[in-house]
Amino acid sequence: MTAPLHVTKGHGTQNDFVLLDGRHTPPLDADLVRALADRRAGIGGDGVIRLTAATDLPEGTALLATEPAAQWFMDYRNADGSIAEMCGNGVRVVADYARSLGLWDPAAGDLVLGTRAGVRRVRRVDGPEPGTDWYAVDMGQWHLPGGEPAATAGADAEVTVPGLAVPRPALSVDLGNPHTVLALADEAELAAADLTRAPQVQPVPPHGTNVELVVPLGETVGADGAPVGRLRMRVHERGVGETRSCGTGACAAALAVRTWAGPQSPAVWLVDVPGGTVRVTALPGGRVELAGPAVLVADLDVDLAALTGR
Amino acid sequence: MTAPLHVTKGHGTQNDFVLLDGRHTPPLDADLVRALADRRAGIGGDGVIRLTAATDLPEGTALLATEPAAQWFMDYRNADGSIAEMCGNGVRVVADYARSLGLWDPAAGDLVLGTRAGVRRVRRVDGPEPGTDWYAVDMGQWHLPGGEPAATAGADAEVTVPGLAVPRPALSVDLGNPHTVLALADEAELAAADLTRAPQVQPVPPHGTNVELVVPLGETVGADGAPVGRLRMRVHERGVGETRSCGTGACAAALAVRTWAGPQSPAVWLVDVPGGTVRVTALPGGRVELAGPAVLVADLDVDLAALTGR
Repeated sequence: MTAPLHVTKGHGTQNDFVLLDGRHTPPLDADLVRALADRRAGIGGDGVIRLTAATDLPEGTALLATEPAAQWFMDYRNADGSIAEMCGNGVRVVADYARSLGLWDPAAGDLVLGTRAGVRRVRRVDGPEPGTDWYAVDMGQWHLPGGEPAATAGADAEVTVPGLAVPRPALSVDLGNPHTVLALADEAELAAADLTRAPQVQPVPPHGTNVELVVPLGETVGADGAPVGRLRMRVHERGVGETRSCGTGACAAALAVRTWAGPQSPAVWLVDVPGGTVRVTALPGGRVELAGPAVLVADLDVDLAALTGR
Repeated sequence: MTAPLHVTKGHGTQNDFVLLDGRHTPPLDADLVRALADRRAGIGGDGVIRLTAATDLPEGTALLATEPAAQWFMDYRNADGSIAEMCGNGVRVVADYARSLGLWDPAAGDLVLGTRAGVRRVRRVDGPEPGTDWYAVDMGQWHLPGGEPAATAGADAEVTVPGLAVPRPALSVDLGNPHTVLALADEAELAAADLTRAPQVQPVPPHGTNVELVVPLGETVGADGAPVGRLRMRVHERGVGETRSCGTGACAAALAVRTWAGPQSPAVWLVDVPGGTVRVTALPGGRVELAGPAVLVADLDVDLAALTGR
């Protein structure tokens, strides 16, 4: 093997990425991204992320004018080679990657990470298991497109899911991208839903929607004595299909359940997705925070000729 | 990362594997295989292969009694952790891996590789592109379970494929595992077939069957002046679904087309599968040889705690 490309493979609740250190790797192009992301002929990932100096990219340089602390930029690409603005699970994995490279010390403050959707601030937090590190990201403003719950009785849509007998009332939640959340009776219903096809939403959302199926699991008490809600969910991502994890979807699910339960319900929710568990916190001022794990699985030396040659 | 596990990722016509060097890695267990083969939480592969000294395993030691040249053994596991006997594409990838490790020099003779299905002899051959190395493997005896073509008129079954209008006549071919091959009119029909569901075969095969859809593409002349047939195929593997490549399936497809075309037809066939191209040669004495590429994509240092911990 001559001149291998050094990359890292990591995932956040099984949303997985090929990671590159921009200091030692060339800029990304669509062919390289597709080749790396190919799960059989390449390495495999839902996306490819190059962590690079903000000054390396026009988008990063532009961001520095208003956010001078955003020295590092997350150049995120979808597996098909297209450019993407942001990825909630990817931000956590990039934070862990920056830490592993010695580019970020959580004890010195938040990681201020540039993305094409603006700055994301990441901090290290304790995971639910003793001694585990999680990462928390402010996901920004959310709102209910259908209006206040008093106006909608907690439902502004109806969703038909293959495998479930009747259409269900559902709540639209906007997190910068559209979500439609419906509550199911129990885990048996959750398991019975067939998400190999897209659920049908009425009224039809003009730009499509992600659909979250949720089962509330009750409340426990957190380490600080405050109540913590728990729910289990599955998600059908717009244009993708069922996935093992969707960061904005977990936020939408927790915020919908909290909307249904009323303002006395917990501000903090543990959300079990197929790929693991994340923690959603409703912040003051209509913002929401997503915390969860990040795992760096392997360091790789990739044979570029083998990757792209056949 | 403490004590990383060193592995290699490779594929043969996009049938992909995680490879381990048995001299420096512990024996495989089902949990480790599943964790490595997991495409999102792990590395990803259709299977995991540990190349090890034959004396390391009872199966290898037993084989040495009758095959003293089989010093190296291919411990093949399916992605679900179960033990498998053999894998045609995997043998080529293991041969390239043994060569990369300095354990086999093709100039010194065939690689005599122990497997749970007995010995496989591998030789280096020229690929169709100048300067490329392919590997050829004797796949053993084949036969027509329905009897000679004169008795069946080239068809002993009928297959209904979703997406194609009417049931098609088909030929059963046995390569140690069962295959049912049907010819389609053209590449448009091949593209129209829906292999997300299993084709229906009549009479129903008692142990199931792999189904190959083939389109003969005519003949060319090989480097040695002999005629070479060409065909394109898709395959639905028994118990798996559509795959990008199936070694025994490519053999069955070429042997069926040759059966239909008669004994004057080429002995050598280039077979285009979704994951690439392989070459099937009908050998004297009712044997068949499969040749094709092997690609080693990357060397990896895997963090075992990250792999199995979350």
